[in-house]
Amino acid sequence: MENGEIKQTVLLKAILAKEASRVLSLMDANQKNNILSAMSEALQQNTKEILSYNETDIKAAKEARITLSLIDRLTLTKERVESMIKGIKDVISLCDPVGTVIEETNPTADLNVKKIRVPLGVIAMIYEARPNVTVDAATLCLKAGNAVILKGGSEAINSNKILVKIIREAGVKAGMPAGAIQFIDTTDRAAVQEILKLDNFIDMLIPRGSEELVKFIKNHSLIPVLSHGKGLCHTYVDKDADIDMAVKISVNAKCQRPAVCNAMETLLIHKDIAYAILPKLHKLYTEANVELRGCNISKNIINSMKSASEEDWNTEYHDLKLSIKIVNSLEEAISHINKYGSMHSESIITNNEETANKFAAEVDAAAVFINASTRLHDGSIFGLGCEIGISTQKLHARGAMGIKELTTTKYIAKGNGTIRN
Amino acid sequence: MENGEIKQTVLLKAILAKEASRVLSLMDANQKNNILSAMSEALQQNTKEILSYNETDIKAAKEARITLSLIDRLTLTKERVESMIKGIKDVISLCDPVGTVIEETNPTADLNVKKIRVPLGVIAMIYEARPNVTVDAATLCLKAGNAVILKGGSEAINSNKILVKIIREAGVKAGMPAGAIQFIDTTDRAAVQEILKLDNFIDMLIPRGSEELVKFIKNHSLIPVLSHGKGLCHTYVDKDADIDMAVKISVNAKCQRPAVCNAMETLLIHKDIAYAILPKLHKLYTEANVELRGCNISKNIINSMKSASEEDWNTEYHDLKLSIKIVNSLEEAISHINKYGSMHSESIITNNEETANKFAAEVDAAAVFINASTRLHDGSIFGLGCEIGISTQKLHARGAMGIKELTTTKYIAKGNGTIRN
Repeated sequence: MENGEIKQTVLLKAILAKEASRVLSLMDANQKNNILSAMSEALQQNTKEILSYNETDIKAAKEARITLSLIDRLTLTKERVESMIKGIKDVISLCDPVGTVIEETNPTADLNVKKIRVPLGVIAMIYEARPNVTVDAATLCLKAGNAVILKGGSEAINSNKILVKIIREAGVKAGMPAGAIQFIDTTDRAAVQEILKLDNFIDMLIPRGSEELVKFIKNHSLIPVLSHGKGLCHTYVDKDADIDMAVKISVNAKCQRPAVCNAMETLLIHKDIAYAILPKLHKLYTEANVELRGCNISKNIINSMKSASEEDWNTEYHDLKLSIKIVNSLEEAISHINKYGSMHSESIITNNEETANKFAAEVDAAAVFINASTRLHDGSIFGLGCEIGISTQKLHARGAMGIKELTTTKYIAKGNGTIRN
Repeated sequence: MENGEIKQTVLLKAILAKEASRVLSLMDANQKNNILSAMSEALQQNTKEILSYNETDIKAAKEARITLSLIDRLTLTKERVESMIKGIKDVISLCDPVGTVIEETNPTADLNVKKIRVPLGVIAMIYEARPNVTVDAATLCLKAGNAVILKGGSEAINSNKILVKIIREAGVKAGMPAGAIQFIDTTDRAAVQEILKLDNFIDMLIPRGSEELVKFIKNHSLIPVLSHGKGLCHTYVDKDADIDMAVKISVNAKCQRPAVCNAMETLLIHKDIAYAILPKLHKLYTEANVELRGCNISKNIINSMKSASEEDWNTEYHDLKLSIKIVNSLEEAISHINKYGSMHSESIITNNEETANKFAAEVDAAAVFINASTRLHDGSIFGLGCEIGISTQKLHARGAMGIKELTTTKYIAKGNGTIRN
């Protein structure tokens, strides 16, 4: 497509989405749940077709020598499709947030003020390789009464096309307005730039992907952005930690799925416990093929480690790599995290409640874990149904975002000839 | 000051604010209330001095032939200072939002997740003439545990200087960290541009003032913006309206304080009631010196009105001017409002509940009033203590904003060696 054609196509899709959003905003939970059920059935019936389209994308990605971490994100399996379907069922079981009264006051005898939840309108999602985002985003947006515009990564174009086709056709048969799910089916980057200008039609933009993508969108969007940011997460093993627990959590936080944003990138260990724990961790990490990069003090304990540089403290590996630093105090750990962390997920392992509380209060992050793995920072685990991402910004939403973050509010004030004196 | 000097000064103030914010974030409600009490006493004791500094600003404004509407915003009186002091007392009486548990879940037996309110950190306010914003903003930010950077309009520089001096000195004596209230004391516009770049130190920026100011800031800020937008508010008199009530509310919405954002700018009247109400309104508006601009149909009823042009439907007069349009239906009223409105405050006068509910559901605005004046859209009236502005955006906050909008959230997840499987 030429640029002029892309501009027209994107604009038309945005207008259609806005029109559909007015219809969606008035639908009740039953109507929306029927649509979602139809989508989940259709995904079930067409799993083979989905996997076959996904195979095409994976083949192309391998030929293009894309990183293993990206291929992991791109890959669908029968289990991951099942997980999408389960995600839809979770969304169906969520209470419809639209119409909920959040606050109610009666400032005077003749004025009642309610603050209620209403849909945002049109939400655009710009994301990278993961095809499951297509289904998660569309269904969560729909349940919250919003239309959605989807722009996935070019690597997943075939997987996304088939997923959208399946859920849209099933949705429309079940009563969804046809404009409710818009899919930008060109892989041309110009389409993204056109989306960013349409603040008259799009109410919120959610970028999900690399730090560069998010930064580019934040700097160029006229539409308010709800960003899923980078995750440079730490685990701090305090001097009062239970060593077995600390080992178990530190291994889980790094190894369970290293390619995702809530995996640990830097391990901080109090000096008083370093000699007791580091050899154990070194053994397990070595068995798990984790490459370790240590500060000078930790290299005194495990001589074979590479040296960590300033750059390592600033790096989100997304891979089986880990930087390790020995700290002299809780305060040093907190200040390292507040300096290098991405305000995503930070964990402390300690049996000292006072220490845990200080860490939780002073670490500036979306989620603080006490004696738990950062990998637990997830909308599904936190009871939000499937998640739309994890926000590292402080406005509108912070941390795991669920359906409520896809709504806004409206005051409804009823009077009886009430005026201002 | 030269540009380099302005840059250094602004940066230093932002760094000092960030440092102070870490101290403020750990203060309890008592400590903060003591500081606020000291401020309110100091304002009381120094009212004469405040009015004298304000007099200097007003004199300069009159000499500069600034509009009446701006001079109204700039003017302080004994009553308006009393109102600021009352505002602080309201803030003291507000529950401290910091630490409140908003949600709590136990996803598994060994994981407890709390979502709690925490301060944002540093908030910058860029505003225009109204000096009361200085005190409202500083005290609300403080109660929510935030440091604040204030950049008021150049017209109010003397009023703002003395207000900040009084509350800062009183606050510090009562235990406030000295960096908590930063005042940009140059009237050079370059200072605003420097503030917009400091996203490493400033967590939120609130512009308050003209549409142009807000737009400029939104387009140039690297800091997330919470904007107080323009108010192009409508009142729709439905065919099922009580005529006396409709007259009372329509006059109040236009005349009670025309220079503010929640005053009505366009009156929509159903054709079936137009002949009955328009002559009554014409009489009262004429007595109140309101200049009327009507559509062709309304001019058939009141011949002496000026003609309203397309531009009038798009204009926020902020003045004793009103555009009037006769509509054929509720649907036409809703669609006019959704086309021309600024999503601020919209009112319907009707005794028909179904009509009222349809209007409330389909009008896309921060606040919808039923049988009440748009002038009631106000944080103090809505029970939020004094207000920080009225947001016309959909993210983070919509409508009258209070202390909760000056906070963010943090998940605190406590486990017992809990990992992800």
